[in-house]
Amino acid sequence: MNVAEMLSAYPRDLGDVDQATLTRCIEECLRCAQTCTACADACLSEDMVAEMVKCIRTDLDCADICETTARVLSRHTGYDANLTRAIVEACAQACASCADECEQHTKHSHCALCAQACRACERACRELLATLG
Amino acid sequence: MNVAEMLSAYPRDLGDVDQATLTRCIEECLRCAQTCTACADACLSEDMVAEMVKCIRTDLDCADICETTARVLSRHTGYDANLTRAIVEACAQACASCADECEQHTKHSHCALCAQACRACERACRELLATLG
Amino acid sequence: MNVAEMLSAYPRDLGDVDQATLTRCIEECLRCAQTCTACADACLSEDMVAEMVKCIRTDLDCADICETTARVLSRHTGYDANLTRAIVEACAQACASCADECEQHTKHSHCALCAQACRACERACRELLATLG
Amino acid sequence: MNVAEMLSAYPRDLGDVDQATLTRCIEECLRCAQTCTACADACLSEDMVAEMVKCIRTDLDCADICETTARVLSRHTGYDANLTRAIVEACAQACASCADECEQHTKHSHCALCAQACRACERACRELLATLG
Repeated sequence: MNVAEMLSAYPRDLGDVDQATLTRCIEECLRCAQTCTACADACLSEDMVAEMVKCIRTDLDCADICETTARVLSRHTGYDANLTRAIVEACAQACASCADECEQHTKHSHCALCAQACRACERACRELLATLG
Repeated sequence: MNVAEMLSAYPRDLGDVDQATLTRCIEECLRCAQTCTACADACLSEDMVAEMVKCIRTDLDCADICETTARVLSRHTGYDANLTRAIVEACAQACASCADECEQHTKHSHCALCAQACRACERACRELLATLG
Repeated sequence: MNVAEMLSAYPRDLGDVDQATLTRCIEECLRCAQTCTACADACLSEDMVAEMVKCIRTDLDCADICETTARVLSRHTGYDANLTRAIVEACAQACASCADECEQHTKHSHCALCAQACRACERACRELLATLG
Repeated sequence: MNVAEMLSAYPRDLGDVDQATLTRCIEECLRCAQTCTACADACLSEDMVAEMVKCIRTDLDCADICETTARVLSRHTGYDANLTRAIVEACAQACASCADECEQHTKHSHCALCAQACRACERACRELLATLG
């Protein structure tokens, strides 16, 4: 990924954001989004798909919210602290919900990987929120 | 749009959600998302684009968050109240931020239309939040 | 929706695009995207979810492609005919694939509605392509 | 990213797709999408934003199309060759258009990085298309 490079290439002052924390949060959002999209699809192909229905739904929500959060965090022009805080909080919540669900299905390696990605992304969101004041 | 028809076609019980309020919120999210995407592009074509920079950025964020909110609200399987509340709150905040910005540029008819769409969507989100308890 | 109003509010010349055809295509893309998102979720809640697996997958693809197409078509600044044509062709194909699939499940009213939305969007894409030369 | 791990975790046969080529294409789409989102925002903050207007627009389109392509390619259930081919072709075209534009602004390091990401993604799409037959 080019997340850190693009942050360095931004032509104006980034304010007092912690760049390492921001970079990690964007990267975890992107990783979590792709993992959730792939996990929803892998769940769809399980023999016992009826048991995976809630997991598929939470994966889809989490993928959408993580992608949107990565986009918002990749923009620095005209920064709005209230908007940023609200979407990062929603992302932490979506990741927590999806991790809770995937952790019940860790016999499937895609759910085990997805639970890890969700927990890492939830943590990165909470670390970023702590720096936003 | 088919929002109400698809809600009626859902094969299971929708719980005690207010279907009219939910339908209106999804419709306003979709309208706001498209209006913000078009407003960002119209701002880009204004002669004084340098004055529209913050407006373009807020439009882009608001479009992304409204689309994601419409998706989450269009799903009913394995409903998660915490996740739903968090994304609808983020959406209300994004719409408020974008309306605040567009209201400063109502000499441009695209910003006037966008401010209205954002306020309507913010209101629909807050009405839905009130029913979520 | 505000599609036609936002097209009228665009501050520069729109070139020789047929505005009515463009408006209808954007509207059908948005309607199809929301219908497909809701159909995927309704399929997930069917008792015989195992029979709906391919339908869910095609719905998800079609929703993503229709949303992206609506976004591209809502932008007029720096128009690129090759890019526009390529995404509208992909959208027509995604709608055709999803309609083919949903038409096999019209006993479910959500699939019947979705097949109609997909066919209408496919048609609107092909009509727009015909005007793009 | 977890792209290769999630591909290995898929519970069914992946058909005769070349997994290394598919993995690289998904990774390049995700990298290109984030780079384009950040490049559009960096362009917005340039002093000479009026010169960057077409670049911003192409970045936005390319980000949307790359994200959607990464999603479609992350799904394997109910594979549809026509749909996959159409979206990967649209992605190659969007990346080519965006690279052409960013290559005119390589004095800005964000455009130089973005042009590279677009060319790499275009190449990965064409390599995947060659394996799809």
